[in-house]
Amino acid sequence: MFQGNLKGKDLITTQEWSFEDLESVLKLAGDMKKNPKNFSSTLQGKSLIMLFFNPSTRTRLSFEIGMTQLGGHAVYMDAEKAWIGKGSESIKDTASVMARYGDAISIRIFPNITDWQYGKSNEVVREFARWADIPVINMECDLFHPCQALADILTIKEKMGNLRGKKFVLSWAYHPRPLPVSVPNSALLIATRFGLDVTLLHPKGFELDEQIMSWARSNCEANGCNLEVSHNMEEAYRDADIVYVKAWGSLKYYGKPEEEKELRVNFRNWICNEDLMDLTNKNSIFMHCLPIRRNVEATDGVVDGPHSIIYDEAENRLHVQKAILSLVM
Amino acid sequence: MFQGNLKGKDLITTQEWSFEDLESVLKLAGDMKKNPKNFSSTLQGKSLIMLFFNPSTRTRLSFEIGMTQLGGHAVYMDAEKAWIGKGSESIKDTASVMARYGDAISIRIFPNITDWQYGKSNEVVREFARWADIPVINMECDLFHPCQALADILTIKEKMGNLRGKKFVLSWAYHPRPLPVSVPNSALLIATRFGLDVTLLHPKGFELDEQIMSWARSNCEANGCNLEVSHNMEEAYRDADIVYVKAWGSLKYYGKPEEEKELRVNFRNWICNEDLMDLTNKNSIFMHCLPIRRNVEATDGVVDGPHSIIYDEAENRLHVQKAILSLVM
Amino acid sequence: MFQGNLKGKDLITTQEWSFEDLESVLKLAGDMKKNPKNFSSTLQGKSLIMLFFNPSTRTRLSFEIGMTQLGGHAVYMDAEKAWIGKGSESIKDTASVMARYGDAISIRIFPNITDWQYGKSNEVVREFARWADIPVINMECDLFHPCQALADILTIKEKMGNLRGKKFVLSWAYHPRPLPVSVPNSALLIATRFGLDVTLLHPKGFELDEQIMSWARSNCEANGCNLEVSHNMEEAYRDADIVYVKAWGSLKYYGKPEEEKELRVNFRNWICNEDLMDLTNKNSIFMHCLPIRRNVEATDGVVDGPHSIIYDEAENRLHVQKAILSLVM
Repeated sequence: MFQGNLKGKDLITTQEWSFEDLESVLKLAGDMKKNPKNFSSTLQGKSLIMLFFNPSTRTRLSFEIGMTQLGGHAVYMDAEKAWIGKGSESIKDTASVMARYGDAISIRIFPNITDWQYGKSNEVVREFARWADIPVINMECDLFHPCQALADILTIKEKMGNLRGKKFVLSWAYHPRPLPVSVPNSALLIATRFGLDVTLLHPKGFELDEQIMSWARSNCEANGCNLEVSHNMEEAYRDADIVYVKAWGSLKYYGKPEEEKELRVNFRNWICNEDLMDLTNKNSIFMHCLPIRRNVEATDGVVDGPHSIIYDEAENRLHVQKAILSLVM
Repeated sequence: MFQGNLKGKDLITTQEWSFEDLESVLKLAGDMKKNPKNFSSTLQGKSLIMLFFNPSTRTRLSFEIGMTQLGGHAVYMDAEKAWIGKGSESIKDTASVMARYGDAISIRIFPNITDWQYGKSNEVVREFARWADIPVINMECDLFHPCQALADILTIKEKMGNLRGKKFVLSWAYHPRPLPVSVPNSALLIATRFGLDVTLLHPKGFELDEQIMSWARSNCEANGCNLEVSHNMEEAYRDADIVYVKAWGSLKYYGKPEEEKELRVNFRNWICNEDLMDLTNKNSIFMHCLPIRRNVEATDGVVDGPHSIIYDEAENRLHVQKAILSLVM
Repeated sequence: MFQGNLKGKDLITTQEWSFEDLESVLKLAGDMKKNPKNFSSTLQGKSLIMLFFNPSTRTRLSFEIGMTQLGGHAVYMDAEKAWIGKGSESIKDTASVMARYGDAISIRIFPNITDWQYGKSNEVVREFARWADIPVINMECDLFHPCQALADILTIKEKMGNLRGKKFVLSWAYHPRPLPVSVPNSALLIATRFGLDVTLLHPKGFELDEQIMSWARSNCEANGCNLEVSHNMEEAYRDADIVYVKAWGSLKYYGKPEEEKELRVNFRNWICNEDLMDLTNKNSIFMHCLPIRRNVEATDGVVDGPHSIIYDEAENRLHVQKAILSLVM
């Protein structure tokens, strides 16, 4: 009955789904995690077309194995090995034909594929969704990574119970290369949807997109929670319940890695270490979407330490995606 | 009972299959399209080894999803990631071993893989068929694309009903690169097998292979239909029931793209547009095997217009291939 | 009951498995070969993550189709298309996450991936096994190819019956490139575990690793069989029951192909031909793990001749791997 509501729905960003829809994903993901065998033929005979423009480990494995565990099949398609993009076939034609064969399409496309024009790879995903009359799931574009966000919030709920009044620190970290902002964007949006008090922590110059910030502020207003921006690691970490570490590139020099580097190299000390974690609450959790550059973004002591729940977080990708797939297909 | 006849049979070109065999594919494809669930365990436990020497979207998806819908499994094998060809392993050894693991082999190999020696990539497919004692299905070589041909004729039958006396125009189109002749060869052969009156329309210099033409003429004699060659677009389009547009390269300069270009560039105006389609019969259909270079081979107005049935045509790849696989495996 | 013993066990080399464990694989492989349908849901809902750092035909097909025949699913993962190695993600993180999604991991990694440092690619496999709490299966590293070894010994048992007193000649062959030693290492170890009298035949300079030789001698002592080293083809072939031909590189110049070549080119005449096979016992068998460079390692006359059982040997990869997967997963 409820599932009918989501049948056929695209998932481009969690921000476009209602709170009830997001909750239904989390609820079903929890059930699937507890009793996976009960869902072994939920998607029997159904096929997911996974279109990858970029390499992937977690996303690829969790989607493909998730489909298998639901009795369906996932086709792994490397965009380089197909007639897609670069002018060889219109997205309209590709998407329309895919919709005749498969039951859903999922797409990973990073900003390098669309020449680091901010928002452009998201447009590719939306163009697929426009023409395919089967659900399209964003497996990470340049703006959003909704499946990661849902796995994150499921993990936080499992570890924290009630989220009201919990302090969520979303911290920038140094990395040798300027990475996309899809994960911090998505973490910010989901945390404010679920009523967490968010401290967005980063060096000056690494602000997130104003549109995203504006959505996050609206979320806070609607949900009675707070959003602060901080540039001070010690202050931000103090009394945190959740520390979410992620490297991202400066939007001021988006697609200009040489210029960006001059800014970035000043913040090599932005690494999450045990001293910082000691400032957080006793039962706080350390999160990262992986892959993590160890001893650059966070020390081994943190990554392998008592606060770290990174593998539980990664595992939850499987469960939320199975729930999403079951609800929309 | 009937299926016994095709069990184990290779499909290299439709020309080598009897009319009854081709009809049995179309009949079963129609049944599978109507009632897909009835065939969900037809190939349970069976594996198709798909060997791709070249990129693919439609063929790869329709074969892999087709196998899944029949309860079987398709292994996607990128020839670059295997020890095949380039002297590393004989086809005899590769094919013999594949036949010990899988239940059928399907192969895509374009002329570039065999240095644009006309007929050479077809020989590779035949060499696999020689040594593998399981069925080998041609997923497009330099000479033939039999699965496309069967999807095409299924589509035409669905749209036209009785084919007797229907005018089928197979038209050359401009394209920036010289493409293989497998699709026009195959369309010509299947249309003449099924009794259509064919007008082969192309600029001078883009004649098809004499062997193919000779088979097509024999088909016409056997089936009481006509084959004409035309170099005049307006004349050919007039009163057409079916317009099949496809770009292909000149065999006179096969494998010599620079020389071929000098001929080709004179025919940039060979594009299917709405004025030409206005010359055809009211209920005529516009076909293309895809991918299509829009506004080069045909205008958006035609591709997205009322005559266009290109997505139905693409969908039928799935159904005819499921039928072929079920009959030969 | 018995299966409980192997549940969760890694297979890095047969040398680390007890004779009883190896026998249980062969026993089950035999059953599966005879009655494949009885095992069609043995691994239902289970997923194998296959991680390939190098191209593969036989291994990839036999593992993927084997999983399918057991009702499970194999994910083909090209390491180039994932965030693995080259410093992008620690093996600890990759393996820990994989263990949350899949039910077993299998890995192929050749010495070129780890800069031809002898034993280094084996260490990568062991590092995965260290962190993944699901079974890890070696699909060939720089030291071992245990699945090939088990397929080999199953084939020998099928053809020879009782192995006691049978003469097994493991012969070096010329090849234009220095190949890994994993196959000769593994053949030597398995043959001496199963009581064959082994003649290791190679030109001077192509000795195998002393650790492997020492294990092989211990195996012989434990099993009452002999190990001889020979540099004389005629002597070694005389009265052989089993001839196993394989090219490998000199460990003295490991990772230095130019220097190695100076040694190697002196032995172009090390090819297995019909004259040599005539020296063997009447019912002797010719084995090769494939791919074989025909008329370089062995003549067509031998490869296609009456002694050759190479396709049966290749087929047995499927059966032993299905047995291994079923026992450890």
